[in-house]
Amino acid sequence: MSVNAIAQPPASTNIARAKERLADRSTPFITDCWYVAGWGKDFTRDLCERTLLGRSLVLYRRTDGQPVALQNRCPHRSFPLASGKLEGDVLRCGYHGIAFNANGSCAEIPTQNVVPRNVCVPSYPLAERGPFVWIWMGDRAAADESKIPDTSWLTSAEWSYATNYLALKGSYVYLHENLLDLSHFTYLHPTTLGTPEYAQTPFDVDVQHDKVRITRRVPECDVPPIYARTGIKGKMSRHTTSEFVSPAVHHASALLADLDASPRDRKDFTIYITHFLTPESQGQTHYWFAFARDFAINDQEASDYMGAGALTAFNEDKLALEAISRIYALEPEAASAEFHIKSDQAGVAMRRILHRRAEGK
Amino acid sequence: MSVNAIAQPPASTNIARAKERLADRSTPFITDCWYVAGWGKDFTRDLCERTLLGRSLVLYRRTDGQPVALQNRCPHRSFPLASGKLEGDVLRCGYHGIAFNANGSCAEIPTQNVVPRNVCVPSYPLAERGPFVWIWMGDRAAADESKIPDTSWLTSAEWSYATNYLALKGSYVYLHENLLDLSHFTYLHPTTLGTPEYAQTPFDVDVQHDKVRITRRVPECDVPPIYARTGIKGKMSRHTTSEFVSPAVHHASALLADLDASPRDRKDFTIYITHFLTPESQGQTHYWFAFARDFAINDQEASDYMGAGALTAFNEDKLALEAISRIYALEPEAASAEFHIKSDQAGVAMRRILHRRAEGK
Amino acid sequence: MSVNAIAQPPASTNIARAKERLADRSTPFITDCWYVAGWGKDFTRDLCERTLLGRSLVLYRRTDGQPVALQNRCPHRSFPLASGKLEGDVLRCGYHGIAFNANGSCAEIPTQNVVPRNVCVPSYPLAERGPFVWIWMGDRAAADESKIPDTSWLTSAEWSYATNYLALKGSYVYLHENLLDLSHFTYLHPTTLGTPEYAQTPFDVDVQHDKVRITRRVPECDVPPIYARTGIKGKMSRHTTSEFVSPAVHHASALLADLDASPRDRKDFTIYITHFLTPESQGQTHYWFAFARDFAINDQEASDYMGAGALTAFNEDKLALEAISRIYALEPEAASAEFHIKSDQAGVAMRRILHRRAEGK
Repeated sequence: MSVNAIAQPPASTNIARAKERLADRSTPFITDCWYVAGWGKDFTRDLCERTLLGRSLVLYRRTDGQPVALQNRCPHRSFPLASGKLEGDVLRCGYHGIAFNANGSCAEIPTQNVVPRNVCVPSYPLAERGPFVWIWMGDRAAADESKIPDTSWLTSAEWSYATNYLALKGSYVYLHENLLDLSHFTYLHPTTLGTPEYAQTPFDVDVQHDKVRITRRVPECDVPPIYARTGIKGKMSRHTTSEFVSPAVHHASALLADLDASPRDRKDFTIYITHFLTPESQGQTHYWFAFARDFAINDQEASDYMGAGALTAFNEDKLALEAISRIYALEPEAASAEFHIKSDQAGVAMRRILHRRAEGK
Repeated sequence: MSVNAIAQPPASTNIARAKERLADRSTPFITDCWYVAGWGKDFTRDLCERTLLGRSLVLYRRTDGQPVALQNRCPHRSFPLASGKLEGDVLRCGYHGIAFNANGSCAEIPTQNVVPRNVCVPSYPLAERGPFVWIWMGDRAAADESKIPDTSWLTSAEWSYATNYLALKGSYVYLHENLLDLSHFTYLHPTTLGTPEYAQTPFDVDVQHDKVRITRRVPECDVPPIYARTGIKGKMSRHTTSEFVSPAVHHASALLADLDASPRDRKDFTIYITHFLTPESQGQTHYWFAFARDFAINDQEASDYMGAGALTAFNEDKLALEAISRIYALEPEAASAEFHIKSDQAGVAMRRILHRRAEGK
Repeated sequence: MSVNAIAQPPASTNIARAKERLADRSTPFITDCWYVAGWGKDFTRDLCERTLLGRSLVLYRRTDGQPVALQNRCPHRSFPLASGKLEGDVLRCGYHGIAFNANGSCAEIPTQNVVPRNVCVPSYPLAERGPFVWIWMGDRAAADESKIPDTSWLTSAEWSYATNYLALKGSYVYLHENLLDLSHFTYLHPTTLGTPEYAQTPFDVDVQHDKVRITRRVPECDVPPIYARTGIKGKMSRHTTSEFVSPAVHHASALLADLDASPRDRKDFTIYITHFLTPESQGQTHYWFAFARDFAINDQEASDYMGAGALTAFNEDKLALEAISRIYALEPEAASAEFHIKSDQAGVAMRRILHRRAEGK
């Protein structure tokens, strides 16, 4: 489905669209989904407290190295288990000493011989992939690891990447919308990503059930500074995608081809920018990202340069979304009064999906 | 109508009066009224964000010098326009680059050729008068500049004045009530305005539809230190008024007459103290004031002295009203349990007017 | 009723119990009770503002030395009387000068000759006992001083004590529950009170209408370091009680007997640890305590040592209860999902009493 083929709806229709039931900051979380719970290095023998999808969790690593995520709240008197201590794989509450196994079952209640069968804390399925640990907080029976989005390039010897994390005071819904929209580059990122000619390149939007993908092809352009390490010297072509993969992941790719490459030179270069979004609460979002490349693999300076550029740009997004959160707080009716523009097509499709999934459909 | 002519109601009636429907901190704002939006110097080529009557606005000045106030919230994705930038008279949103003219109409949506007709931001009528810019946030058709309260002495060569601003954490309703009450001078302002004999002078209260005026005449008294620059050396008479002019303005005057003036000496001296109150939210008030005189015109020291004295006294009012706000927050039922005393007559009349006007009557 | 004689209920019953209507952080305050209002030294000729049971009070001392507690809010315009000033025993509001006698009756309204009969501020019965002033905030007719819990050892020449105060961000209900539970010593106070063998000593729980008492007897044990000043060198026996005396008081005693005492040596030593809990609001508690002994009376070093030890341990309780408050704030449904363990028996009985009393039964 090409945006350019769609006639501009009359103004009144255009405005009316905003009344459609789209996900916004008050939409319930979608739990049947793999989210990034943290860096692997967040899971250690020291207890770590973290809130994901509105639930307080305690994170640690078993003696055999397996990561663990349990409900942080002791079911007895609501003391945070993260303030307790580890005894081998067992987590003992710091208040009355009730002990839980890594699977959440109760190992011991110090003052009594019998442990009631239904005493336990929920434990959450985890899976470690490269630098990240993923968590499933929904229906346990549906926790299929094969549904974890592919990030195999983060563990491949043929790729390098830079990563970072931002704590965003705003809903993950609007961060997803931001990531599906290239029209803001010129205005919000004038010194980093802002490339008027690129933003105005025609694009295709493909919506497939739970995914939304934007595709752009630039047949010929100059090499942007951030890709200097490719070694491309003359003109290149650029094929990019931006994809809403799941409530937890947005993935962008850039395929660059050296138009002047001689037969013995390398011709193709790939960039993958993957954004990992995990709602902390309805007003806060954990935001990790990885900026990967299949060239200049051992070039630490290239990693530093690309990582710093990404951090600067994504921090501009963070500040913009936090400014909007401030306006929403001041004028609660604001969000429902918004209207859509042509370039919102992908974002609106994504919010339609989030809304449907939040309703369990 | 003279207070002194009114019989003291029996105690039970007196207390019961507080149940009457008077404006309080939860009364809706009265929008059909000219309010001070800011100093003229707040309107520049740098965008200024300010909340008035619960609405977030962006303030700037056109290239031709005209002040502009627009809704701060971009109607597209609620980004604060004050974080955007000016291109001539056009204000461009810093997120997606949607541009608005100074009249609020949409000038451009970068990603599409057509601008839907109903895309705009509200713009608010403004009028510059002396050091202040006034705003009308109600029914635009009723925005009659002739209704802006007279402050012609702030632009007259025959007057001088000192001004200042206080941000008050409390409702403008109680600040108006404070201004209509002279009985608190002795207790709240013992070192500045506190003059027991003055506060106890009989007074008249006149209520006329939307205005409330208190009048006092002191036939003979000594010259208070704050009026030393009049040059009056012996006895003087003092005729003062305190008037609730509108939800936005309280005006006080003092006419001093030198009782010993020889025919060739100046006999009459005038002080105008004008208070400009603009609700920011229901719990916060913008409070500007101007302390003007028709004598010692070029005497900067007199301006400094009077301005400093006014600031000290009005800051005591601010602190008192903020202490009351703290009590209201702690004991929400407090306000509705209050009772009135005799000297509250003018304040109660004013709160009755505010309540009626807030109901659109 | 001995805990050890009670059969362990099946697990499902055990869990179900938590659904019983027990007092929690949202239970209304119990006003018909004497609470500690403050140290005697808090009542001076300087006005002191303090919130007790959700009501803002002003505390002072009359010229004859009697302590006074009045409603802090002036009934006229809600100005805090604690920001006014004392004129002898009369408290004058700092806003309009309305004056109140120490019994709460109105002494003067400056702007009028008549004081309506029903103008007053509530005054609260107080009683001074040792270092504390007690307050009754309920039905005045029921303010019987003989119901003030006994603390006569705080005024006896044969006793010494250390005292201190903690401001706790949590409900007094859970502090009471903490104090009735010894099973947490091992885990929360490992370096201060933690004595595994002591915590596991069988105990008896006696519930009598409005009181709950736990009793423990250790026939023979070593002398804990905190009791070194008793002079006991060999083995001792230990008989302890922990009692929920009222919503305002928890009292613990330890009777130590020197098992090797020769007939001419002192054999018995007593420790009284009294906890004074006064709700400030539903989420905040004033917490005073006195750690008293009938030995080493003039030994300041012993007072300092015991006082410091108590402060360290009770601060651990404070931090644990505040951590729980944080979890409750994050997961509001947490409290109602809790289950009870065997050692909660006394605490649950106490919460049942608080719930019943809060309903006025």
